Amino acid sequence: MITDEIKVLAFDTFGTVTDWFTGISGIVGGTVPGVDAGDFARQWRARYAPILARVESGELPWRGLDDLQTETLHDTATHFGITIADDDAARLVRAWREIPGWPDAAAGLARLRTRFTVCALSNGSVALLTTMAKRNGFGWDFIGGSDLWHHYKPAREVYCGIAELMEVRPDQVMMVATHQSDLDAARGFGLRTAFIERPLEWGGAVKDDSGSPHNDFHASDLNDLAAQLIPHTTSLR
Amino acid sequence: MITDEIKVLAFDTFGTVTDWFTGISGIVGGTVPGVDAGDFARQWRARYAPILARVESGELPWRGLDDLQTETLHDTATHFGITIADDDAARLVRAWREIPGWPDAAAGLARLRTRFTVCALSNGSVALLTTMAKRNGFGWDFIGGSDLWHHYKPAREVYCGIAELMEVRPDQVMMVATHQSDLDAARGFGLRTAFIERPLEWGGAVKDDSGSPHNDFHASDLNDLAAQLIPHTTSLR
Repeated sequence: MITDEIKVLAFDTFGTVTDWFTGISGIVGGTVPGVDAGDFARQWRARYAPILARVESGELPWRGLDDLQTETLHDTATHFGITIADDDAARLVRAWREIPGWPDAAAGLARLRTRFTVCALSNGSVALLTTMAKRNGFGWDFIGGSDLWHHYKPAREVYCGIAELMEVRPDQVMMVATHQSDLDAARGFGLRTAFIERPLEWGGAVKDDSGSPHNDFHASDLNDLAAQLIPHTTSLR
Repeated sequence: MITDEIKVLAFDTFGTVTDWFTGISGIVGGTVPGVDAGDFARQWRARYAPILARVESGELPWRGLDDLQTETLHDTATHFGITIADDDAARLVRAWREIPGWPDAAAGLARLRTRFTVCALSNGSVALLTTMAKRNGFGWDFIGGSDLWHHYKPAREVYCGIAELMEVRPDQVMMVATHQSDLDAARGFGLRTAFIERPLEWGGAVKDDSGSPHNDFHASDLNDLAAQLIPHTTSLR
């Protein structure tokens, strides 16, 4: 059975285990006057993947995520025709450490951890992810942050790096994410994939949660994933 | 107060949170006939620090801990005038992942984790330390294994590396160990230090648990350390 071959579950964090929209729009609402907080949060988040891609392409040198998020925050403010003071910017960037987990996340991870090694595998830094975990009760076995490799997903170094650190083959690792692009990259490097539906990731905005038929698993949340991966316990817990 | 300045506790593992003597002498007794298992375990362990030092000096290229432990295992067998088959050697090296925690370790770490970020900072690999943690219920916030830096303590890269990953200053990290040499190195790089008494680390053999007066804390075990660092909870828990 495939579940016997999988040893490690590697989780995307922003969107998959945490609800960045609620966390970031909330602090934007209290910090940035005169804008629609939800729109501002979405515009900021929309600038995330592109700037990471510029680092991975070599156009920009390696920089930590907080630094990149500061730059995209100011870009977002410009888009809205406003400016943000440095101390407010620092608070807003810091807020990505404090975004809430989805209601099922901590319990689902705890259940999955009884059978698998559960790791964060995120473009956040180790320190960011450690704070996020402590605030939300996420019991990671290991935290794979982008500063371990100085690379951002979808870079090979990240996906293969977690397999190497866990001393398993890539096909013994399953990437778990609500972003098909993350899973497609992971599969390209030999990992298994599980899609998690997070229809509210972007607040009320449309999100495609259909997932690719190439994924090994498709789950409505982490409890559903646990039920599929550890079926014997489904009826017991 | 010093405890307000400390953010991260970095724990040595072999000897400080786990009882390698009991674990290793136990498996030696069941695997290597014709030797005193305790003596064999001590002789093997005595070859640990010297071979790591040869890597750090540049005499040997970087190699993972399992590989080095395999070499010192065969050296130890030679010392006893015996040979060990490869599959037995693999089992014995693997046994370092499965050594038991000291009775106070899991509970003490859990208590310390309520106030501090608790990390393993060990010459073991991340995978080794992850297995060790799962078997013993150690709830690390982060696991700092030697393969993150390709360096072994007492190298600067390890001590300063954990501060960097945690995004704190070295003096906001306290190294916790039962080996004064580890603490002396950590202090040299600006970390705080706490000595933990483990009089049975080498089985019945003599171990110096006096600790240096330069250490910031000296504790009889991890519960005692928690009582000293989180005094308000001492009488409650």
